Amino acid sequence: MRGGNLSTEEALDRLGSLPYVDLGFAKIDTHRSLRRGFPEAIFCQGKSLEHVEEIVRKMRENTNRFMALRASEEVYERVKRIAPEAVYHPLARAILIGEEEREDEGGSFVSVITAGTADVAVAEEAAVTAEFMRNKVKRLYDVGVAGVHRLLDHVTELREANVLIVVAGMEGALPSIVGGLVERPVIAVPTSVGYGASFGGLSALLGALNSCVPGVAVVNIDNGFGAGYLAGLINQMAKT
Amino acid sequence: MRGGNLSTEEALDRLGSLPYVDLGFAKIDTHRSLRRGFPEAIFCQGKSLEHVEEIVRKMRENTNRFMALRASEEVYERVKRIAPEAVYHPLARAILIGEEEREDEGGSFVSVITAGTADVAVAEEAAVTAEFMRNKVKRLYDVGVAGVHRLLDHVTELREANVLIVVAGMEGALPSIVGGLVERPVIAVPTSVGYGASFGGLSALLGALNSCVPGVAVVNIDNGFGAGYLAGLINQMAKT
Amino acid sequence: MRGGNLSTEEALDRLGSLPYVDLGFAKIDTHRSLRRGFPEAIFCQGKSLEHVEEIVRKMRENTNRFMALRASEEVYERVKRIAPEAVYHPLARAILIGEEEREDEGGSFVSVITAGTADVAVAEEAAVTAEFMRNKVKRLYDVGVAGVHRLLDHVTELREANVLIVVAGMEGALPSIVGGLVERPVIAVPTSVGYGASFGGLSALLGALNSCVPGVAVVNIDNGFGAGYLAGLINQMAKT
Amino acid sequence: MRGGNLSTEEALDRLGSLPYVDLGFAKIDTHRSLRRGFPEAIFCQGKSLEHVEEIVRKMRENTNRFMALRASEEVYERVKRIAPEAVYHPLARAILIGEEEREDEGGSFVSVITAGTADVAVAEEAAVTAEFMRNKVKRLYDVGVAGVHRLLDHVTELREANVLIVVAGMEGALPSIVGGLVERPVIAVPTSVGYGASFGGLSALLGALNSCVPGVAVVNIDNGFGAGYLAGLINQMAKT
Amino acid sequence: MRGGNLSTEEALDRLGSLPYVDLGFAKIDTHRSLRRGFPEAIFCQGKSLEHVEEIVRKMRENTNRFMALRASEEVYERVKRIAPEAVYHPLARAILIGEEEREDEGGSFVSVITAGTADVAVAEEAAVTAEFMRNKVKRLYDVGVAGVHRLLDHVTELREANVLIVVAGMEGALPSIVGGLVERPVIAVPTSVGYGASFGGLSALLGALNSCVPGVAVVNIDNGFGAGYLAGLINQMAKT
Amino acid sequence: MRGGNLSTEEALDRLGSLPYVDLGFAKIDTHRSLRRGFPEAIFCQGKSLEHVEEIVRKMRENTNRFMALRASEEVYERVKRIAPEAVYHPLARAILIGEEEREDEGGSFVSVITAGTADVAVAEEAAVTAEFMRNKVKRLYDVGVAGVHRLLDHVTELREANVLIVVAGMEGALPSIVGGLVERPVIAVPTSVGYGASFGGLSALLGALNSCVPGVAVVNIDNGFGAGYLAGLINQMAKT
Amino acid sequence: MRGGNLSTEEALDRLGSLPYVDLGFAKIDTHRSLRRGFPEAIFCQGKSLEHVEEIVRKMRENTNRFMALRASEEVYERVKRIAPEAVYHPLARAILIGEEEREDEGGSFVSVITAGTADVAVAEEAAVTAEFMRNKVKRLYDVGVAGVHRLLDHVTELREANVLIVVAGMEGALPSIVGGLVERPVIAVPTSVGYGASFGGLSALLGALNSCVPGVAVVNIDNGFGAGYLAGLINQMAKT
Amino acid sequence: MRGGNLSTEEALDRLGSLPYVDLGFAKIDTHRSLRRGFPEAIFCQGKSLEHVEEIVRKMRENTNRFMALRASEEVYERVKRIAPEAVYHPLARAILIGEEEREDEGGSFVSVITAGTADVAVAEEAAVTAEFMRNKVKRLYDVGVAGVHRLLDHVTELREANVLIVVAGMEGALPSIVGGLVERPVIAVPTSVGYGASFGGLSALLGALNSCVPGVAVVNIDNGFGAGYLAGLINQMAKT
Repeated sequence: MRGGNLSTEEALDRLGSLPYVDLGFAKIDTHRSLRRGFPEAIFCQGKSLEHVEEIVRKMRENTNRFMALRASEEVYERVKRIAPEAVYHPLARAILIGEEEREDEGGSFVSVITAGTADVAVAEEAAVTAEFMRNKVKRLYDVGVAGVHRLLDHVTELREANVLIVVAGMEGALPSIVGGLVERPVIAVPTSVGYGASFGGLSALLGALNSCVPGVAVVNIDNGFGAGYLAGLINQMAKT
Repeated sequence: MRGGNLSTEEALDRLGSLPYVDLGFAKIDTHRSLRRGFPEAIFCQGKSLEHVEEIVRKMRENTNRFMALRASEEVYERVKRIAPEAVYHPLARAILIGEEEREDEGGSFVSVITAGTADVAVAEEAAVTAEFMRNKVKRLYDVGVAGVHRLLDHVTELREANVLIVVAGMEGALPSIVGGLVERPVIAVPTSVGYGASFGGLSALLGALNSCVPGVAVVNIDNGFGAGYLAGLINQMAKT
Repeated sequence: MRGGNLSTEEALDRLGSLPYVDLGFAKIDTHRSLRRGFPEAIFCQGKSLEHVEEIVRKMRENTNRFMALRASEEVYERVKRIAPEAVYHPLARAILIGEEEREDEGGSFVSVITAGTADVAVAEEAAVTAEFMRNKVKRLYDVGVAGVHRLLDHVTELREANVLIVVAGMEGALPSIVGGLVERPVIAVPTSVGYGASFGGLSALLGALNSCVPGVAVVNIDNGFGAGYLAGLINQMAKT
Repeated sequence: MRGGNLSTEEALDRLGSLPYVDLGFAKIDTHRSLRRGFPEAIFCQGKSLEHVEEIVRKMRENTNRFMALRASEEVYERVKRIAPEAVYHPLARAILIGEEEREDEGGSFVSVITAGTADVAVAEEAAVTAEFMRNKVKRLYDVGVAGVHRLLDHVTELREANVLIVVAGMEGALPSIVGGLVERPVIAVPTSVGYGASFGGLSALLGALNSCVPGVAVVNIDNGFGAGYLAGLINQMAKT
Repeated sequence: MRGGNLSTEEALDRLGSLPYVDLGFAKIDTHRSLRRGFPEAIFCQGKSLEHVEEIVRKMRENTNRFMALRASEEVYERVKRIAPEAVYHPLARAILIGEEEREDEGGSFVSVITAGTADVAVAEEAAVTAEFMRNKVKRLYDVGVAGVHRLLDHVTELREANVLIVVAGMEGALPSIVGGLVERPVIAVPTSVGYGASFGGLSALLGALNSCVPGVAVVNIDNGFGAGYLAGLINQMAKT
Repeated sequence: MRGGNLSTEEALDRLGSLPYVDLGFAKIDTHRSLRRGFPEAIFCQGKSLEHVEEIVRKMRENTNRFMALRASEEVYERVKRIAPEAVYHPLARAILIGEEEREDEGGSFVSVITAGTADVAVAEEAAVTAEFMRNKVKRLYDVGVAGVHRLLDHVTELREANVLIVVAGMEGALPSIVGGLVERPVIAVPTSVGYGASFGGLSALLGALNSCVPGVAVVNIDNGFGAGYLAGLINQMAKT
Repeated sequence: MRGGNLSTEEALDRLGSLPYVDLGFAKIDTHRSLRRGFPEAIFCQGKSLEHVEEIVRKMRENTNRFMALRASEEVYERVKRIAPEAVYHPLARAILIGEEEREDEGGSFVSVITAGTADVAVAEEAAVTAEFMRNKVKRLYDVGVAGVHRLLDHVTELREANVLIVVAGMEGALPSIVGGLVERPVIAVPTSVGYGASFGGLSALLGALNSCVPGVAVVNIDNGFGAGYLAGLINQMAKT
Repeated sequence: MRGGNLSTEEALDRLGSLPYVDLGFAKIDTHRSLRRGFPEAIFCQGKSLEHVEEIVRKMRENTNRFMALRASEEVYERVKRIAPEAVYHPLARAILIGEEEREDEGGSFVSVITAGTADVAVAEEAAVTAEFMRNKVKRLYDVGVAGVHRLLDHVTELREANVLIVVAGMEGALPSIVGGLVERPVIAVPTSVGYGASFGGLSALLGALNSCVPGVAVVNIDNGFGAGYLAGLINQMAKT
């Protein structure tokens, strides 16, 4: 029978190496930045200004690089009081705390592609996240399938990317097309852009999930952060 | 006030010009073939062999060209007894009664395109219908977005078509791509091909409905007949 | 093996003939108006006033006839500064830039029909689009199935149309009725008009998709532009 | 405060007047036939042959007129052993026990209408139920909206009915049309007839529920019995 | 063959007896009030104040009794200018034009029942509609299944009603319970009252549709008018 | 035959022991607090301030301990005028009337756990309800599966609880994990926290319902009150 | 910062006390029966006969009381070879291994109630599970809301139960009614019984989730085992 | 303006480098295996035996390593005649053609994890695919959240993996837990394992998509091949 032969060391290693800060209403995980060098992220949407403030204050005591996402101007004004070094990306609605100068990371890069102009906000969230994780990012916006020549015009660049994030609402066809043109992982981000039978992004989500191209995986509707994080993870693996 | 000034002639013209045959359990419309020269169609699925037989017998007395759709081999065997001239297209699961020799209809044609091999049955239903309505049809099968070069290889032919029927399951991206490449009406036929989150064709349906390309309209999932009929209608308008 | 025998010319023709203007956040397609004489359309909903302005400015440099859709009064005020010739259709929420005088286009026309009064806005988007593409349009509003005599009163006119756009919310029955009365393509536009189990237009959409009448195709919920564009395309084919 | 002033008699009357037979696995309600003269119904689908047999046996001891619905030939064979007077309606899949001779019930009647031939089985369940409740029924089958003239040809008869049951699958438009032509209650029965985006009757159900015509109510998909019962109830009220 | 033998008289009778007023954006049906003595209804929601005004003005010229539904205070203020005799029922959000004194209609009545207090607005729309059609109405509010004794306390009254309208959100169980207690038609009105998995009234709608009690029919979510109209229709049949 | 042998006493006991107060628009149940000692609850959402006031006034005359839920500050201001002893819990949005001092209830307690900070409001509704029913509650917030070590750090406490309420939005995985760690009933409360494909709490709801762990039951999305009430019920059973 | 202060003992206690048997394709949990005295359960549906056999063999070596659920006759034949003491409950489709004689457990009992006869199989799974966990169970079948007097006839028994399991398909109204009559936890089990708009149990599920009665919680559709297990858990708490 | 400056070479390179074999009913892509060294895959489900045979024959002439998926025993028998070297993996339902001996690929590996035993078939499809792409795979089956200790027992191994595939039906919680424990990409494969409210894998799909853990991406329900392919792609990037 398994289960009894766990050495004490292993058990401690598993549990004890994952510290956190307890604020009562929140338990802040800091192990990711400590161990992986990856940034923690605060999801501001649905949190009161006071809660965001308190979390940012505590976070800053325990880690020197983190993000605040889905952050309005108003949230940024508050955060700046506590963390004057905070930088705001309005399009991405992201606040970066502890962003240092990025030297050029070399040739390996993440490509962030959108189908339309309205998908740009989600794409920027992805791009800023990947950059904050110290990845080089190239943007290619508004190359949706209505005019596939705009995409084909950039095939060479697409093929040089290590990972590709494809952000698309409406019919969600772009991830499949891109996936058929490259030999690298494609992360599809369906967006809630559209109307009528797009049902808040459902059509783009189903489109991406049912892609007939292997090598495509999907994150939640509008989840730019998740796509950027995953792309950053994969790109760094390829570099090492 | 409107409504009182209808001349007797108009009213009669409206109603009296649409005769039908009453079988009790079915009232057979024959006006389409009489007036338009368009074939009537019997939808066999869900009807008993006896009912199909009886309808075919009556239909044949009133019109000399009609189709039976979603027809199994077994249905065909029955139909042949009554209408020995009936021709069966097994892939399309369609029986044609009164199919005459088609002379070459000239340059104007309908293009029928599929994303995959599994979409071919629905495509054939569309193609056979359009042909039975005396349209020239060109088929282009298995050119889905996973390898968009297979499609691009045929752009010239696509651009010469008068109307295009695009049959696609899974993510349903092909109608959008085709729509972006041509300047003619595109009729999308979502198919129930797929698995998991394709939900019986829902993903392909939503994909087609949310197409960002103008000039694309959609028929019901697997409705090859409807697409072929509509394409035939449009193509004939262009010819006259 | 196919694929290697593409002549250089063909390849270039395919890709090179589709130019666009790159604004960074948007890649403006201008080939449609150049090549087809069809108007480009800007979808304003969800775009910032600044983006719309910038796109209109660039568009105007490259083409002399285009539309801006889902445009509020406020958007129109901005657009007028750049393009003083712009004309606003408030009911359709459409801005037309480069609209010239239309001479009477002759007998061939597009019929735009609504089930109810609340469907008129979507119908106007369709009508204005078809007119901008230089098609004659006849409107027939509020003839839904609750009083089918209002529709029957206009059967003669319906039968003279080249293409029919049927705009209907709620149960979406009107496209089927109209489809049964005419011998021309019917484009159904489900609308989000309704309440309760209309589920934002889903009931009208399913109603139209499941039409038992051949010759009916469907566009997205509230997609007046798509219907008008497609009807215009078909009507012009019939004229040539 | 209410609640304490219930007289003993009232309480007893409420509860005691509703007797039932307890079989352990089933508690058979017999009060409807006793009190109202309405037939009880056994829903056979999903019940074992043994259970149906036992229920029929007990039912027959307590009431002399009842129905068994969704009953296969096989079920009928079993029932006949216990109740040799049982009559089977194969199209309706209904067994009637205790059906007496019906004299002509006079002018007042229920109209049962179907959109297509495939809706006839559900319609027959409705018709047989209403007849068993001693209502006169007139059938009008296959008059769907694809050829609205077939329906208009019978407007006079429709207007003479006391109640109308409209059975329709696919787009479910017929109840609305009929409702617009008559001044009597219309009971819509959506059916699971259709394919693709009919989603097992959902499209017909939503079509009927969203009817813009007042005077239309809806029962469950394929629920012919419920519609027949309700129509019978209403028709009898009008007679008394 | 049927269809040719329509006498001129019949055809005219069918079509010509249904006059309407054409406002361009609306075609006002007036035949219901003319012929049946039933009131016409204007659905105000989603219509501009100007449109409502114009429709009311025309309606008043052609009929002397009609309703305006889903009408805000603001709409009422406008309507009063044109029709000073208009009466507003704020809870029902209904305006009645031409409401005369109702003498006591005798014993026969419609029962309007709600599960909760939040369902009262929809119930009042139903009650006011039935009353405007000259039916006697008895209200029984807030007797939902959480305390079934509140309902049982009124069984005698329920059993005396000719028709019963049961208005319920959330789980929608009340129509089934009431249906089991009476021997008269029950019209279920699901409401959008609820939260979470009530999905805007879907749970109450499905609850009512799946009722295991025969004699229950369903109208659209929140459709008080439809229920009141149908109940009025049935109650009047019973009176005559 | 059963049903006739009900003694008068039993029938009266059943119905007469459940009194209520009739306000016309509401019938206030007071039997729960009278008999069980459990608090009645008023659901304020969707009720007018006047209605809430009137209900509170009547309720206070008949029972001395009750709650008002989904209550805004504004509602509280009104309630305080009538019931100055009312206490407001802003996070839980609950008003308690008649809250007495709670002595320490001893060792037996209810554990209320949340996956994230955004789930705290729903959790507080549950906690306050259970406390008002005189149960001891221990809170454990923000221990979702993204950092399962935060949860494992409290396993000992979890195992000491009598009942556990697990409040989780998004993927709704926490109830399953907790259920696998304890040997007590787990009540899952899915929340509408999330975005995109969370579809207003549907993902969390389905996650909880499909839990592979026995001993987990689910209440409606965001239904903190229901969970708190049920947990209180179970905890009190264990105490007695 | 939390997380570092875990004593070695605690960590080991958490992890080491949960042993399991590793079969490669399955890891059999045996801690529940060891620690809680609760039976483990094997879910047979979708497993090969060989896998079930192997799991039963290993399970039997490690624990002397366990269940196999969703087990066909065929599965039972196989299991009996390995475990001749196995007992099969065909209605519940459950195999019990190690079932000892149950002495009468005294007054405290679980009530299992069904709405209809077709819900009995799911109810038996619940009942057998609770009994196997050494709880007394009383069954009350076929007391659905169509004839609420059948239920009211047993109110006294319902009120004596410690926990109530209510099994209902179709409209799922019974859990709410029962919940309103008792003062104990009610566990609702929606079933897939029904047709049409029951959508495989969705209507009953939504009905139960939206119950307006506090004290009701819900398990997955057809999940008799989960309900029986949870009821057993609660009943045992009340006994100790 | 962009679009004109494409050099001939680039255009040719883009299109001409993607050859395919045209079978009429299928256009076989062979560029992936030629260029990337990645295997092509034939999806057998829904294809006739004849079609599969013909595709395999042609495929084998153009590439020496490919897979056939969703292949029954019967399909394998056919394939073996044409390709005697074909190897069948019955659990994965996969045929490998051209599988060579794999030397040990070194330390870098893909981890394939399942929640339950019933998820193993999908997991094997993923594992076999990744192995065929020359990746080392470690399997860890049946470690779902019901007994989270079984998973924690293998944390060290999980942390050593380069990429992790997590296959889970029902509530789909496992990907989130695994994602919280590792610092590598996690690919979630929802499965259709479950019943009731799992709705064919929808619950597991939504669970995975709504994961609160960054670094998790999702493929279609039951899409083992897609997950294996993507994992192989990522793992190989890390190796180079």
